Amino acid sequence: MFILDTLKEGLADLDARGLRRRRRIADTPCGAHMRVDGRDIVGFASNDYLGLAGHPALAAALAEGAARYGAGSGGSHLLGGHSRAHEQLEDDLAEFAGGFVDAPRALSFSTGYMANLAALTALAGRGTTLFSDALNHASLIDGARLARADVQIYPHNDAEALAAMLEASDAAVKVIVSDTVFSMDGDIAPLAALLALAERHGAWLVVDDAHGFGVLGPQGRGALAAAALRSPHLVYICTLGKAAGVAGACVIAHETVIEWLLQRARPYIFTTASPPAVAHAVSASIKIIAGQEGDARRAHLATLIERTRAMLKATRWQPVDSHTAVQPLIIGSNEAALAVAARLDEAGLWVPAIRPPTVPVGTSRLRISLSAAHSHEDLARLEMALAQLDEVNHA
Amino acid sequence: MFILDTLKEGLADLDARGLRRRRRIADTPCGAHMRVDGRDIVGFASNDYLGLAGHPALAAALAEGAARYGAGSGGSHLLGGHSRAHEQLEDDLAEFAGGFVDAPRALSFSTGYMANLAALTALAGRGTTLFSDALNHASLIDGARLARADVQIYPHNDAEALAAMLEASDAAVKVIVSDTVFSMDGDIAPLAALLALAERHGAWLVVDDAHGFGVLGPQGRGALAAAALRSPHLVYICTLGKAAGVAGACVIAHETVIEWLLQRARPYIFTTASPPAVAHAVSASIKIIAGQEGDARRAHLATLIERTRAMLKATRWQPVDSHTAVQPLIIGSNEAALAVAARLDEAGLWVPAIRPPTVPVGTSRLRISLSAAHSHEDLARLEMALAQLDEVNHA
Repeated sequence: MFILDTLKEGLADLDARGLRRRRRIADTPCGAHMRVDGRDIVGFASNDYLGLAGHPALAAALAEGAARYGAGSGGSHLLGGHSRAHEQLEDDLAEFAGGFVDAPRALSFSTGYMANLAALTALAGRGTTLFSDALNHASLIDGARLARADVQIYPHNDAEALAAMLEASDAAVKVIVSDTVFSMDGDIAPLAALLALAERHGAWLVVDDAHGFGVLGPQGRGALAAAALRSPHLVYICTLGKAAGVAGACVIAHETVIEWLLQRARPYIFTTASPPAVAHAVSASIKIIAGQEGDARRAHLATLIERTRAMLKATRWQPVDSHTAVQPLIIGSNEAALAVAARLDEAGLWVPAIRPPTVPVGTSRLRISLSAAHSHEDLARLEMALAQLDEVNHA
Repeated sequence: MFILDTLKEGLADLDARGLRRRRRIADTPCGAHMRVDGRDIVGFASNDYLGLAGHPALAAALAEGAARYGAGSGGSHLLGGHSRAHEQLEDDLAEFAGGFVDAPRALSFSTGYMANLAALTALAGRGTTLFSDALNHASLIDGARLARADVQIYPHNDAEALAAMLEASDAAVKVIVSDTVFSMDGDIAPLAALLALAERHGAWLVVDDAHGFGVLGPQGRGALAAAALRSPHLVYICTLGKAAGVAGACVIAHETVIEWLLQRARPYIFTTASPPAVAHAVSASIKIIAGQEGDARRAHLATLIERTRAMLKATRWQPVDSHTAVQPLIIGSNEAALAVAARLDEAGLWVPAIRPPTVPVGTSRLRISLSAAHSHEDLARLEMALAQLDEVNHA
């Protein structure tokens, strides 16, 4: 068969199952109010939880960083690409979010995907058993695969089931891995219970705070700070392209863990460092997150979350019990979820339909992602559109 | 044992074997002339082959992109993060470097590491056999692991051995994967022979042109353009943080291949899109690369390469026969390579010692990386320092 034909068949199959995805093109800074595909819309699609991605101070910091360091890093961190801006960002993050461990240190990456691969491949390997939450993000699953560790999947947020699996395991090295806030459900892992298990069994607890950093805890220091946890067993990953509004990620842990990653993690060693200007902009973002402006944005976001919870309960669909900025509404089939999203789109509201493989089959959903840049008027528009849809469906 | 102790032992072992690595901190744009760890030095460490990382026009383009699009993308490409700047970059790259295929299309990534993982995991899987050059970059090796394909490693640049392995294979899907320019040797893969084999056996040929894009071929269009190859079997990856001076990477191939990646490649789907401003700066870089300034920089680089080849032949160590900007000088043991690098460092020249696992044991080397930003005076300093070292060693 001609080499392209297999792929063409695969694409036709995706079409037939309602799984084909399409990109939209944003002409403006991404966020609550965007110009997309030539239309002005209210966006509930982004992960820009604090509304910082379009913040003028961060654009200015990116420009300042470019003037100081140039456009690119020019090399990997170990071969010329590590700049003063990366060093400063790592210091800033260790201080801001490293309170969960003595001697915290941070290591910066171009993406959260690579940070997760690095943490898991450096800590786990052959002879390791990795205990992974059933709803963990794809990047954690890929990290576990790449580590070639034995992987045991425990039921979502079920610390009791995990305890039994740890008890039964005789692996030399054990690693528990979990999202803190689950990206497609918005619920939070039982972090204190997971840490107690890690300490009892001498295991690492690796947590990905992609959707908690900047939002949860005092000053937005993240999910571990919110739960007031502290232990050398903790390895913390925060991403910097969501609430922080820029790009990249950091692993934070005891300095020995970080030095081990720096020396051994292939996704750290074998990649070009991110532009120093990007690191410079993230440092500026952390100042905003930690200050009064951050507090005000988190307070406004909290009111939006409570209002959305009430709004979703009033629909005939099934909301997930979430107290975070991720507010899912489970519709069911791919077709039904796409139809609801299409109707909202007609009303100028972008609420993406999330389908397998991102979520389990039969749980296709709207993922309403809230941002501090949303107004109550934005929510009123969403509420009205959902109510009208409900009436149409009941008629 | 206390959880940190295993890692401490591992670090002590690296020290004992001369494998501990150390980062240096750059205070200036990375390139041929840098301020590093508080000293002004001549750098032969970066991959900034055309000297563009510190180019004022690219810093200005990054600032312009930040003003237009904000600091961050705010989401994954399929969920709000895809901007006009990404779209433009993909169009620019498909036109500039996609001449090897009908209907070329490009897909942009935050790093080359992720582009390689995406291409290999989307095209290969269980039931696939991946044929991989023995000296391929770590990111291609990790991509093959993550794909969970059967992997067969062929001797470096040995198309005859590869032919025999393909002949003996009954895999349903076959993928050949190779660097174009090998990053630690500077030599070039036999691309025409590899493509002939791919076509004979109905295989994909995936090539990573990290060190060729912008440097090789007419207008710097890359290794496939330099070899005048053209086929739907080709999948081309170029990185944008080396000669292009910014950050990121693109996969370029027939539009059906790219659409397949967009729909199925987990390292594409499950990551935040790079800042639109970065894509905007890369588009500006491609204009420079393709124009007269690019031609002038490539011509100057070519004279530096020829001069360096002659210089290295005059030493008592073993140069690799390279006609690219990567000019390695094989020293042997880790200790010897580190000692030579330390002496050059005293002379204000940063030439990194490359050790295992980046290169095979016993072939630790200096990797002299040339840039169009180097002057002949810079090379004269390197030549004198190497000559003095030679005398010391012979004495």
